[in-house]
Amino acid sequence: MEVKSIYDSYKELFDKEIEVEGWIRKHRKQKDVGFIDLSDGTCFKKLQVVYDKSTKDFEDISKIHFGSSIKVKGILIPSPAEGQSFELKAKEIILIGDCPEDYPIQPKAHSREFLREQAYLRPRTTLFQAVFRVRSILSMAIHEYFQSHGFLYLHAPIFTASDCEGAGEMFQVTTLDLDRVAQMGQVCYEDDFFGKKVGLTVSAQFEGETFAQAFKKIYTFGPTFRADKSHTPYHVAEFWQIEPEVAFCDLTRIMDIAEDVLKFVVKYALEHAKEELEYLDEYEEKGLIKKLEKTIKQDFKRATYKECIDILQKAERDWEFKPKYGADIAKEHEKYLTEYFKCPIFITMWKKELKSFYMKQMDDGTVASADLELPGIGETFGMSQREDDYEKLLDRMKELDMKTEDYEWYLKLRKYGTCERSGFGIGFERLLMYITGIKNIRDVIPYPRTYGSCEY
Amino acid sequence: MEVKSIYDSYKELFDKEIEVEGWIRKHRKQKDVGFIDLSDGTCFKKLQVVYDKSTKDFEDISKIHFGSSIKVKGILIPSPAEGQSFELKAKEIILIGDCPEDYPIQPKAHSREFLREQAYLRPRTTLFQAVFRVRSILSMAIHEYFQSHGFLYLHAPIFTASDCEGAGEMFQVTTLDLDRVAQMGQVCYEDDFFGKKVGLTVSAQFEGETFAQAFKKIYTFGPTFRADKSHTPYHVAEFWQIEPEVAFCDLTRIMDIAEDVLKFVVKYALEHAKEELEYLDEYEEKGLIKKLEKTIKQDFKRATYKECIDILQKAERDWEFKPKYGADIAKEHEKYLTEYFKCPIFITMWKKELKSFYMKQMDDGTVASADLELPGIGETFGMSQREDDYEKLLDRMKELDMKTEDYEWYLKLRKYGTCERSGFGIGFERLLMYITGIKNIRDVIPYPRTYGSCEY
Repeated sequence: MEVKSIYDSYKELFDKEIEVEGWIRKHRKQKDVGFIDLSDGTCFKKLQVVYDKSTKDFEDISKIHFGSSIKVKGILIPSPAEGQSFELKAKEIILIGDCPEDYPIQPKAHSREFLREQAYLRPRTTLFQAVFRVRSILSMAIHEYFQSHGFLYLHAPIFTASDCEGAGEMFQVTTLDLDRVAQMGQVCYEDDFFGKKVGLTVSAQFEGETFAQAFKKIYTFGPTFRADKSHTPYHVAEFWQIEPEVAFCDLTRIMDIAEDVLKFVVKYALEHAKEELEYLDEYEEKGLIKKLEKTIKQDFKRATYKECIDILQKAERDWEFKPKYGADIAKEHEKYLTEYFKCPIFITMWKKELKSFYMKQMDDGTVASADLELPGIGETFGMSQREDDYEKLLDRMKELDMKTEDYEWYLKLRKYGTCERSGFGIGFERLLMYITGIKNIRDVIPYPRTYGSCEY
Repeated sequence: MEVKSIYDSYKELFDKEIEVEGWIRKHRKQKDVGFIDLSDGTCFKKLQVVYDKSTKDFEDISKIHFGSSIKVKGILIPSPAEGQSFELKAKEIILIGDCPEDYPIQPKAHSREFLREQAYLRPRTTLFQAVFRVRSILSMAIHEYFQSHGFLYLHAPIFTASDCEGAGEMFQVTTLDLDRVAQMGQVCYEDDFFGKKVGLTVSAQFEGETFAQAFKKIYTFGPTFRADKSHTPYHVAEFWQIEPEVAFCDLTRIMDIAEDVLKFVVKYALEHAKEELEYLDEYEEKGLIKKLEKTIKQDFKRATYKECIDILQKAERDWEFKPKYGADIAKEHEKYLTEYFKCPIFITMWKKELKSFYMKQMDDGTVASADLELPGIGETFGMSQREDDYEKLLDRMKELDMKTEDYEWYLKLRKYGTCERSGFGIGFERLLMYITGIKNIRDVIPYPRTYGSCEY
């Protein structure tokens, strides 16, 4: 039996003999009785196992280490303890795998830094049981949302020969022997696996657009890579991104979808990860659940970039970066704005110089773009209507001195049956940070890869 | 309105005026009337649009090119044509995006090779509308199966510092400027992004095991990379893999799960991709649907490697590779065996020399492993019980002259609360080939990356 199924139907199991396997997550021994918190990972909650002198080999059991795997045979009984409906009274406890005393995880508080160093063991701790369970549940929420709304799931390529957005931040992949390259004194790309220079995707948007022009509504959900050397709690080199792209869709409509997605996944988390969120509310971010409940209830604010700059300029604050029309909105500004509006906000219609070349240009020097700012976390979703006019896109690229021949197929999408289209990108880890209350991105990703660090 | 919602509720829409946007996938013009097959990508089927002289700007409409995007306003009426329940009688057709005559996709048969070169346009063709729709549907089937069975979805890392299985077939990632490396005459890994040599994952199994020892049942579903120089219809350098891993689980049980997964996704495809499979049955593999229906009905055969070799040796065949106990089972043998048993088979208990070091060693020189062979496609799922004994694993690694210090954490999983555990890997593209009948792996993946080829 699994712990989850015991919780699901414990009433029917009372007084029945059951067998369960799992790991000891707590072990309290008294003179005549012992208590084990058993986890088998199938649910967030643990199973209370009680043994006493009537249990086979009582003395041996009391010596079993924390962290060991065991099999318990016993009778499920109503629990005399408060706040607990049942417990497993052990007839027999069999040690499967010992866990010697050099086990790095001990039943005490460990620092996050220490646990990151033990990334292969930290999923066994209560905190990471909560976090990675939420991660899995939210992944499913993403798929359920998009599939039930008729979006096609696109596996965008990871290897890419186009440098597009990634200039400077792209990882290169190669099968060349670098030592040999150094010896030879030259790089011979003809000998490389693909016969040319190839990198790792920094965004699936362009491929997403090609599919949106065939399937109307598509989304990607896959790993993305940025060789970003920032050492902040928000940056990793490898992260998962969700990039929906919708044809026959303008900026207003894509903002509606983005808001709907966010509310759906938050609601899904509240429904499907209740215990995990309660734990995180208690130990990570007081008021987390209230914040999430508020998120799904309120209408998100929409304000133009210009309006936001006006608000920031009127604020009586000592800014590190003075808000200025034409300049970017800094983290301190984002924070102020979400507090000012007291809700998530879309900052829309940015000056075109601040945004990417592919965004739809308006007559007033802005582009049809929006950033969704979440309280406490800043920018999470970036979105825009894409320029659908071949000539305008080409002109903008030339203005920016881009090598237009590298974008031939991207441009041609505007030539062959073009249409209004919009899309957005969700940094999955940022979303998770918002929903779990975890403050460091390294703690919401199973094996974090950051500048200078790739362990395991 | 979307074409899908029109199909879903056409009866309620009769005689109502509707608006729909999409692309022209066929355009037949006659003197007084014209027919357009309109696709908006929301479902496999197209919408028949009829226009005539009562339609606004009849003459202009008849000149609209194949491939263009249009908006149609019209009345939904029962269709006089056979095999079709309704059609949209256009009042007005507005050209949104033209598609000039140099459009590479024309309303005629194109070779697969040609379409691969036009990978950014091929999703617009009927064949790839079917294939990529099935790909999306099956992805969801995978998630639904595992989530509903209590498996945790693990996003395993793509970057890996451990060379493990991938020796020789691993891609290296770097931010070093290779031209500079060539100039300098030496590789300075301290200057590389991670401060050391890092590659792309060839399998998520090891990380999967770490999570299975915390969550009992986990699965991964993500991209995997092999720098495989084979030029076959079965090999790509970048593909998606599903790798479930289950603690407290032996080989027999993991075969049960593998069989269950396969049947679930095939059933799911039959239910959710009916029209796509009918098309593929007609144009790609005659009898496809029958094959799939048979797959979900029959019990899969289980035969040991030794039994299979015996069968092969008794077969009166001119083998390219003579079947021999101790030698691998070649593609021609796999084919023979699936025909011999007339169903999918698990070939179990391989000689340990033929398999990986981490598989559970039995006393008779075999390992607790199994390959699932599907008729017409060969090996799709490889699975094994993992060695859970620290000493045995260590000994086997030493026997194979492996650098055990590189596997320290992997070994330690056998030290800290070890247990029986098993897992398998599904090559998602191979599975798709089985289900769609497509014969070349390049045609089931949106942007295929193969030796010497990385376009777009």
